[in-house]
Amino acid sequence: MKMDVEKIFRMKGGVGKTSYSKNSSLQKKASDKVKYITLETIEQVYLTAKPKSLGIADLGCSSGPNTLSNIREIVDAIEEISRRTLQPAPEFRVYLNDLPTNDFNAIFQALPDFYGGLKNGRSNQGAPPSIYIAGYPGSFYGRLFPDNCLHFIYSSYSLHWLSRVPQGLYDETCRPINKGSIYISDNSPPEVPKAYSKQFQEDFSLFLHSRSKELVSGGGMVLILLARKGPSHIDRGNSFFWEILYRSLASLVRKGDVEEEKLDSYDVHFYAPSKEELEDLIKKEGSLKLEGVEMFEIEKDVCDGSATSYGTRVAMTVRAIQESMIAHHFGDAIVDDLFDIYGRMVDEEMAKEDIRPMTSVVVLRKL
Amino acid sequence: MKMDVEKIFRMKGGVGKTSYSKNSSLQKKASDKVKYITLETIEQVYLTAKPKSLGIADLGCSSGPNTLSNIREIVDAIEEISRRTLQPAPEFRVYLNDLPTNDFNAIFQALPDFYGGLKNGRSNQGAPPSIYIAGYPGSFYGRLFPDNCLHFIYSSYSLHWLSRVPQGLYDETCRPINKGSIYISDNSPPEVPKAYSKQFQEDFSLFLHSRSKELVSGGGMVLILLARKGPSHIDRGNSFFWEILYRSLASLVRKGDVEEEKLDSYDVHFYAPSKEELEDLIKKEGSLKLEGVEMFEIEKDVCDGSATSYGTRVAMTVRAIQESMIAHHFGDAIVDDLFDIYGRMVDEEMAKEDIRPMTSVVVLRKL
Repeated sequence: MKMDVEKIFRMKGGVGKTSYSKNSSLQKKASDKVKYITLETIEQVYLTAKPKSLGIADLGCSSGPNTLSNIREIVDAIEEISRRTLQPAPEFRVYLNDLPTNDFNAIFQALPDFYGGLKNGRSNQGAPPSIYIAGYPGSFYGRLFPDNCLHFIYSSYSLHWLSRVPQGLYDETCRPINKGSIYISDNSPPEVPKAYSKQFQEDFSLFLHSRSKELVSGGGMVLILLARKGPSHIDRGNSFFWEILYRSLASLVRKGDVEEEKLDSYDVHFYAPSKEELEDLIKKEGSLKLEGVEMFEIEKDVCDGSATSYGTRVAMTVRAIQESMIAHHFGDAIVDDLFDIYGRMVDEEMAKEDIRPMTSVVVLRKL
Repeated sequence: MKMDVEKIFRMKGGVGKTSYSKNSSLQKKASDKVKYITLETIEQVYLTAKPKSLGIADLGCSSGPNTLSNIREIVDAIEEISRRTLQPAPEFRVYLNDLPTNDFNAIFQALPDFYGGLKNGRSNQGAPPSIYIAGYPGSFYGRLFPDNCLHFIYSSYSLHWLSRVPQGLYDETCRPINKGSIYISDNSPPEVPKAYSKQFQEDFSLFLHSRSKELVSGGGMVLILLARKGPSHIDRGNSFFWEILYRSLASLVRKGDVEEEKLDSYDVHFYAPSKEELEDLIKKEGSLKLEGVEMFEIEKDVCDGSATSYGTRVAMTVRAIQESMIAHHFGDAIVDDLFDIYGRMVDEEMAKEDIRPMTSVVVLRKL
C-alpha cells in the first residue's frame, strides 16, 4: 500500500499538549550537543567567503520553538564574528523549508516578536542586521532553491525520514513480507533491510545532488540525523523504538481495536544509516567534501524538572512525529491509547536496560 | 484607540463560505481588466534584461485562488515569449508576500497541485521551467526582500490599505473628531481627510522607497489599487461603501447591539488616493519612472450565473476583508447581522443609482 508521505506526513502543528512545538525537548537537547559544530562550520564558511549577503537554509525546520531559536543563534554568532573582525554584518537571507503540510503559519506569526527581540537591547551594537526570512515549502528530496544561493545548509533530525515507505515490502502476490514488524527487525526477511537501504540510497543521493547545486562553492552543510552504530540493523538505539511501537500496536490487535491485516501492511518511512553508508554515498556523489562524521549517543535526560516519566516523554516525541501517518493508516481513534501503551512499554524497557539512540553529525563542504 | 493592524488585519483564511478564497470574484474580475497591462509590463522587463533567473513578487498575495493563478499566467507568458524568441526559459523565483497573519499554509498546501499542473500536457514544450515559490511574511510598508533581487513587482488591491488607522482623529481631550463616520464623509471635519491623506503619503512613500531598493535597475512594477476620480474625497465609488457600512453599524446601535461610543471610535485603515496624489508621491520619491496611471471603473457583474444578489456579493467581499478588524473592535457576535444589513443596503442603493468603484493601475520602472 502506497502512502503519499509528502501529503500526509507532518509534525503536529499548533501549541497544544500533543503538538511538536511542545514535545521537541529531545531534539533540542541533542541539537545543543552539536551546536558548536554547527556554529563552527558556518563561521568558517563566513570567514572564508565574507559575503555581503549570507544565504542560510534550515531543511525540515518544523514549527516549534527550535525553528527561530536556531536562526537567532546563527545570526548572533555571525554578528559577533563580524564585530571581532571589524566588518559590517552581512545581510541574512534565511530559507525555512519543510513539507507543504508543515505549520508555516505558526512560524510566520512568531516573526514580529522575533524581529522585535533582535532590535531590543542593542544600544552598543547599532542597528539590527537586515534579515529576510522566507518559507520554502517542498520535499528536500529534490530541488528547493535557485542555483548557487546558499552559503550554509542545516538539517536537524529530518534526513532519517525517507521520501516514502520503501517499495519491495510485498511479495509477487501482493502480500506483505514484513509481517511481525513495522521496520527492520529480527523477524524481517533479508529483502526488508535491502529495500530500506535502497530507498535511503536513492533519497540521500538525490538530497546531496540537489543541495550541491544550491550551495555556492565553499558553502557548508551540517546534517544531523539518527544513525546506527555498525552494520547490523538491529540495535537497542533506533530500531528498538519501532519494535516497541510494533508491540504497542500488536497489543491493540489483541484487544480487537486494530485489524491484524492493517498492522501487517504498516511500515514506517524511516531509516538509520551507518557511518559507512553515509561516507559511501557522499563519496559517490562527488561534489561535496566530507569534513567529518561524528556519532554520539543522546544522553537520557533523567531529570528535566518535570514529573513526566521518560517513557511518556519519548511517547510524546514519537507521537508528534508519527501521529499523522498512524492516524491515516489506523484511524484517529486508537492514537491516545496507542501512545499510552507505548510510553509505559518504554519505561518498562528502560527499567531493564538503557536505550540510547545514536545520532550522526555530518559536516560537508561544497568543492 | 490604536489598533495593531499588522497583528489583527487579515483576509479570512480557509475555504469556508465566508472566506476570502470564496469571495474574491470582484477582485478577479478587476484584475482581468488589468491583466494585459501586467503581462505587457513583465514581458518588456524580461525582453530588455533577459535574465537567466527572473525574480517576481506578489505583494498582498492573500490566500485565494487568484494567488497561484496570477503566478501561472506570468510563467506561461514568459515561457511563451522565450519560445518565440528562441531562448531558454528563465528560472523563476517567486516571492509571495502578505502580513504574517495571512493563511500561507493554504497557499503552500496547493503547491503540489500547482507544480503538477505545470508538468501536465507539456509534450511539445519539454521539461517544465524551474520555479521556486516562497512565502515572505511581513508588512510591505518597509523592506521585505534583499537588495536588487526582483525584476517585477505586482500588487493587486492591497495598497489602499493603510499601515494603521491615521493618527489625528481625536481632539486634545481624546474625543473622536470623526463621529458619524468611519471614513472620510460629508460629516467629517477637514482634519479627517488631512489625517488620512498624510498617513497615505507616509505609507506609499515608504512603500516606493523600499521597493526601489529591491528592484534591479530596469525592473518593473504594476500597482492596482482603489482610487478616487478627482480631488473630492466623497464619491459614490469608494467612500460610499464605507458610508453604507457606517449606516449598517448605526442601525445596530439603534437596536442596542453596538454601543454608540464603540462606533464613534471606529475608523477604517483605508484611503483612496487621486491620480494626482499618486503622481506627486512617485515624483517625490525620485528613483522610479512613472510609465502610466490608468483609472477605470469596475463594471458591475450583473449576471455571474449565481442567484446571489450584487449587494450580498459586495457584502461578502467587504466581510472577507474587514471581518478581522470589525470582530476585534465590536466583537464576533455582530458580524453575521452586520453584513446581512450591509448587503441589503447595498442592493437598495444600487436600485436607486449605480455605484462604480474606481481602480487605478500604476506602471513604474526602476531607473
